[in-house]
Amino acid sequence: MNKELKNDHVVTIKDFTVDELEIIFDLAEDLVPVAEGKKKNDDLYGKLAATLFYEPSTRTRLSFEGAMKRMGGRCIGFAKPGTSSAKKGETLADTIRVASGYSDLIVLRHHREGAARLASKFSDVPVINAGDGAGHHPTQTLLDLFTIKEEKGDISGNHIGIAGDLKYGRTVHSLTHALSMYDTELTFISPPSLKMPEEILKGLTEDGISYQEVENIDEALDDLDVLYMTRIQRERFPSSKDYEEVARSYHLEKKMLDDSDTRSDMIILHPLPRVDEISADVDPTPNAKYFRQAANGIPVRMALLKLLMEC
Amino acid sequence: MNKELKNDHVVTIKDFTVDELEIIFDLAEDLVPVAEGKKKNDDLYGKLAATLFYEPSTRTRLSFEGAMKRMGGRCIGFAKPGTSSAKKGETLADTIRVASGYSDLIVLRHHREGAARLASKFSDVPVINAGDGAGHHPTQTLLDLFTIKEEKGDISGNHIGIAGDLKYGRTVHSLTHALSMYDTELTFISPPSLKMPEEILKGLTEDGISYQEVENIDEALDDLDVLYMTRIQRERFPSSKDYEEVARSYHLEKKMLDDSDTRSDMIILHPLPRVDEISADVDPTPNAKYFRQAANGIPVRMALLKLLMEC
Amino acid sequence: MNKELKNDHVVTIKDFTVDELEIIFDLAEDLVPVAEGKKKNDDLYGKLAATLFYEPSTRTRLSFEGAMKRMGGRCIGFAKPGTSSAKKGETLADTIRVASGYSDLIVLRHHREGAARLASKFSDVPVINAGDGAGHHPTQTLLDLFTIKEEKGDISGNHIGIAGDLKYGRTVHSLTHALSMYDTELTFISPPSLKMPEEILKGLTEDGISYQEVENIDEALDDLDVLYMTRIQRERFPSSKDYEEVARSYHLEKKMLDDSDTRSDMIILHPLPRVDEISADVDPTPNAKYFRQAANGIPVRMALLKLLMEC
Repeated sequence: MNKELKNDHVVTIKDFTVDELEIIFDLAEDLVPVAEGKKKNDDLYGKLAATLFYEPSTRTRLSFEGAMKRMGGRCIGFAKPGTSSAKKGETLADTIRVASGYSDLIVLRHHREGAARLASKFSDVPVINAGDGAGHHPTQTLLDLFTIKEEKGDISGNHIGIAGDLKYGRTVHSLTHALSMYDTELTFISPPSLKMPEEILKGLTEDGISYQEVENIDEALDDLDVLYMTRIQRERFPSSKDYEEVARSYHLEKKMLDDSDTRSDMIILHPLPRVDEISADVDPTPNAKYFRQAANGIPVRMALLKLLMEC
Repeated sequence: MNKELKNDHVVTIKDFTVDELEIIFDLAEDLVPVAEGKKKNDDLYGKLAATLFYEPSTRTRLSFEGAMKRMGGRCIGFAKPGTSSAKKGETLADTIRVASGYSDLIVLRHHREGAARLASKFSDVPVINAGDGAGHHPTQTLLDLFTIKEEKGDISGNHIGIAGDLKYGRTVHSLTHALSMYDTELTFISPPSLKMPEEILKGLTEDGISYQEVENIDEALDDLDVLYMTRIQRERFPSSKDYEEVARSYHLEKKMLDDSDTRSDMIILHPLPRVDEISADVDPTPNAKYFRQAANGIPVRMALLKLLMEC
Repeated sequence: MNKELKNDHVVTIKDFTVDELEIIFDLAEDLVPVAEGKKKNDDLYGKLAATLFYEPSTRTRLSFEGAMKRMGGRCIGFAKPGTSSAKKGETLADTIRVASGYSDLIVLRHHREGAARLASKFSDVPVINAGDGAGHHPTQTLLDLFTIKEEKGDISGNHIGIAGDLKYGRTVHSLTHALSMYDTELTFISPPSLKMPEEILKGLTEDGISYQEVENIDEALDDLDVLYMTRIQRERFPSSKDYEEVARSYHLEKKMLDDSDTRSDMIILHPLPRVDEISADVDPTPNAKYFRQAANGIPVRMALLKLLMEC
């Protein structure tokens, strides 16, 4: 089974078939006790991953490194471009060739869209895209899907609301693509200026996925199994005033859950970091699953690392 | 025995009873050969610590990470805030919640007083305060006490001089508190403007600890078992001239040891880094124990890590 | 055999005899499968190296850390001075004393010439110089020599061209010294203003090494077994125009290889990073060995680490 993934590069979520996703999720589920430190595992002993982060990232870097280390693997790398030889004028292609000579797998975060695709062409070892600017961040989508599956039993059959900046957000684009491979109903929640791009909507229609678009979270809350919140960035708005008006209506509070007919088993996800989108009073509710979702970054990445290195 | 410490947070030295301190020191002593690389140990194999350093620190970070690694454990984390998602506006509480989902224990260094206490409220795993601004740095005090015990056989029964900036120095405040749990005699050595705060002195009196205050190191040297030196920071003085006058009299030289009736077995400690407080000609004397003290950071932190994770 | 190297400091390539070099290269060859992740090895399990990088360096730091980790060892350290206590005014001597109390070996990169020599005086554990400003970088020379040996079967008996900034380049100075211990013929290729220093040339004559000096790569290509390329830095020239003229003639392209009577088995090396010295169209030729050379940084450093720590 693993042979389907061994030595593959992972540049976008589109690199996976549904069958491959299921292989990853099944293995990730088995590895949860290892991720939580309750069970020892040394499947990656002797393996070395190069974690090359040209852009800072706590969550992604720490969970990749944690995933390697929980399974006995090791990491070399850098957390900031300033500590790399990029400063000396080296091309990304050369850095990748060198790193691929040092390691068994490369995890790359880069500010430039397309960086991971380029890297995959120069590497002798698998490259995992850990975010390439406005491009893709496929392991984020993997842990989003895994969390839905873990919490709801299945991905198919759910009505999933996706809220926030749907125009520019790479996270919601990848997630939408991935969900279109399953049998789900989608509700897109965004201000008019930040709607999901036409092209993606057209793709959904072609895939036979039913969706609707609304402007306010309130309108959607009653009927969702999953609410996926994302940030709305101030930079997207012409003025501070425009931003604040919108931000207010994309701020989820416990009161909104209480006042609506929200299903008691609706789960709330967020890729984090959050700024103002979700009030702290939502955190203790049974609906809040965003910290669980973050923690799932470890078992999901463990599974992927193990499958790509086939060990 | 270990159960007293398992899963505890360590925010200040006051979190420990004398019995708990003894448990830590006994285990630390056993672990010295492991700390020195003379004996292998994998008690922390499979364990993962998150070392979150929002402020740079060589000594503390390296010794925590060394302690984990000497026992087979692993670390994830960052050495500078610039590489963390604090930059994206994430709250400390959220970062801690995520890190606690990734790891078995959090080591936190933060510029804000109270940060570790706050972190302990949001973490599912033990938090060790590795310095919170003007607040506390309990593991420094642990290794100070351990070094006194290792060098003098016991902590009680010693006459201990504490020199430097006693008004603002968090290190000397914690140390004084800890020593007040033992039967010691204390001499505080500081310029008048940097004396030990009244409140702390009052506490000592209540605890039945005898102490005296002097202005010059020279005055105290003859009668000490331990001289604990600390830095006097230029910023504390109205002018450079004021600073230099004081700094001169808080500069320990070999000549001062030779000229005084200093006990041949008096030990000199310093939390490091030192700037001008101790002349290099003191380093080769048998009294100089500050590098040994620094090295003790490893076995002491190994013991603490093992006890908190009970493994 | 190992006893010759155990606990030695490695400050310059001159610290090694030819016999010691052979011991390192033989062990490195044995360790290639471990370096490539094809064979497991835990010879350094329980060992801790302090990697202190006061200057950024991807290649050197990652390959030292990779070498430790491929053999089960661990690292503590920093990748930038900003994260170290150098900022607080600590001397290098003190930092080294502390690090030597934490670890079994120190790898030091520093911007100041002579830093490694100084460090070796204050450390109780072996210090490896990983580059000290305009000074030395002995492990670079080790991997240069190892690559020549690996590719050509032997170091002696080769005609080796060294091109670039021969006046200021520490890499080419060390390499030239090392090659003078073998039976080689050398051709130095540089613009007149960047010729190999007289003193080094005199040493070669004394050692009975035949050499010649030429100004253009073209002139030398026909007769070489090894072409060692290095960067020419813009800063060395009075004006941009002067630089560009020279840079053009030190730019190796595939066409130059095709047009000349270059030996089909001539190998091209470069310490990397390259900027403009070697065109990308050379990369796929069988002559290009600079990425292999970079990858050799791992087995060579593994061998050295193992021998110095004798384990």
